[in-house]
Amino acid sequence: MILTVTLNAALDVTYRLGEVHWDQVNRVEQVSTRAGGKGVNVARVLHALGVDSTVTGLVGGATGDAIRADLAAAGLNDQMVGIAGESRRTVVIAHPRGATVFNEPGAHVSASEWAAFVDRFGELLAGCAAVVLSGSVPPGIPREAYAVLLRMATDAGVQGVLDAQGEALMAGLAGRPAIVKPNQLELGAAVGRPCGSMEDLLAAAGLLRSGGAGAVVVTRGADGLVASTPDGNWTAAAPESVAGNATGAGDAVAAALAVGLLRAQPWPERLVEAVAMGAAAVVGSLAGDIDLASYRGFRAAVHLRRL
Amino acid sequence: MILTVTLNAALDVTYRLGEVHWDQVNRVEQVSTRAGGKGVNVARVLHALGVDSTVTGLVGGATGDAIRADLAAAGLNDQMVGIAGESRRTVVIAHPRGATVFNEPGAHVSASEWAAFVDRFGELLAGCAAVVLSGSVPPGIPREAYAVLLRMATDAGVQGVLDAQGEALMAGLAGRPAIVKPNQLELGAAVGRPCGSMEDLLAAAGLLRSGGAGAVVVTRGADGLVASTPDGNWTAAAPESVAGNATGAGDAVAAALAVGLLRAQPWPERLVEAVAMGAAAVVGSLAGDIDLASYRGFRAAVHLRRL
Repeated sequence: MILTVTLNAALDVTYRLGEVHWDQVNRVEQVSTRAGGKGVNVARVLHALGVDSTVTGLVGGATGDAIRADLAAAGLNDQMVGIAGESRRTVVIAHPRGATVFNEPGAHVSASEWAAFVDRFGELLAGCAAVVLSGSVPPGIPREAYAVLLRMATDAGVQGVLDAQGEALMAGLAGRPAIVKPNQLELGAAVGRPCGSMEDLLAAAGLLRSGGAGAVVVTRGADGLVASTPDGNWTAAAPESVAGNATGAGDAVAAALAVGLLRAQPWPERLVEAVAMGAAAVVGSLAGDIDLASYRGFRAAVHLRRL
Repeated sequence: MILTVTLNAALDVTYRLGEVHWDQVNRVEQVSTRAGGKGVNVARVLHALGVDSTVTGLVGGATGDAIRADLAAAGLNDQMVGIAGESRRTVVIAHPRGATVFNEPGAHVSASEWAAFVDRFGELLAGCAAVVLSGSVPPGIPREAYAVLLRMATDAGVQGVLDAQGEALMAGLAGRPAIVKPNQLELGAAVGRPCGSMEDLLAAAGLLRSGGAGAVVVTRGADGLVASTPDGNWTAAAPESVAGNATGAGDAVAAALAVGLLRAQPWPERLVEAVAMGAAAVVGSLAGDIDLASYRGFRAAVHLRRL
């Protein structure tokens, strides 16, 4: 079983409009809501692949109830832990030429709520082969949260994928995640310098590995990914650019990498799967949706290169 | 007592950000929520003035619960009627140089829910001196909704202020509201031609009066208002432009006009009060807030002119 952790779970709300008049009053044409947060998207992908998974994290209030109802509707195994505060929403303003995302910061988590979560996480690790820790850390949770959880996982013999940015990523390295999965911008922000060239990028990945990451997989949008692993450095990319919605593509990559840990796949196979899954998520309509037919097609076509 | 009706009540959510990156991902710095809908704002102003008022309309779901909790916190007399659907939200994206408003359409109201509301409205009219009907009509409610409610009010000896636009305004005229209160743009849209000049504006107001409105009060932002009444045509304006947030200024004008009906004030007095209250709402920080000290000051300074 793969456990996905979403400390800052959200209700993702999408407002669709034919046109947006900035700094004016707009009538929303269509409202849709869905349980979100990166770890929830990872679990959706795993569920679509038929891989046994469990969703945990923190939810609260009426928005938390709506998140849980949607997890149940999606057939996901919900082991979320309740908090007193109200779960956050994200609002996406979607119009035909783009989308603007507004992410609420999330409710404050008390020390006792965090302690209750840590206990529950420990219990859930028992039946678990890999864990994916995704996204931002809500207010009130200690900055070393991911390191704490990753150490518990390691002690339980469970390998972890960490998909976070900034301080949450850097502080998490101490927990020795098997894989960290920043995108190119996040990697640059984490090490404090841009990673435009392959040389810069591999140097930055090396810094994260010396900080504690077992491997670093850097997503680069349509350019695929670059991996710095114990089995060498690699690039992997889809043969052509894929049209669609890139939101959630990183979560599909994280899901593929967790499956790779679960199945102890060799790195070349993991990376082909990760690129194919990311591209299939771009074809899928919503974050967490993958197009399975596209996924199978992409697998045969990924360009993998050892550096 | 003044009854305010908000058929499409909302939870007004404000996202504050230092800067907005359109078509990118934004982190919201501050989230605030408040019961909204124009009729709720009218009741807030009446409450601030110490005028006895009651809030009715339709609310449902967890968002409806949040609306009712905020009405109670504001000390308003809540006589909202429940529906099965989820109440809508409005989202305001506020940054230092402007604000973009996104209004959800609202939950569908069933025929039996509408019938239950009409019954409740009839009961509430019993203790009532004036009624204010404000804002949009949610999906499922017959287009002649405001006409139905206004006829019931007239039959009960209660005078009505109608603050609506488009079809809801035009269909409401058949209920013979004592006053309709469009802004200049809404008036133009209702009669199907721009109302830029005073002549056009008075001609359009005349059309609404011949359609059933007792009087027409047209708000014109910083230019004050123009009124077509049984006691003649008037303009009224604050002596100088007032800096602040114009959201809710129209609701403060509607509140003043309802107080004028309650107290059977002569038209010149009503219009002075309406301008002063609208200007005091611009000074107030949120929709429904008026600055009472500014209100008293503005009253002495309004320029009133008979045309």
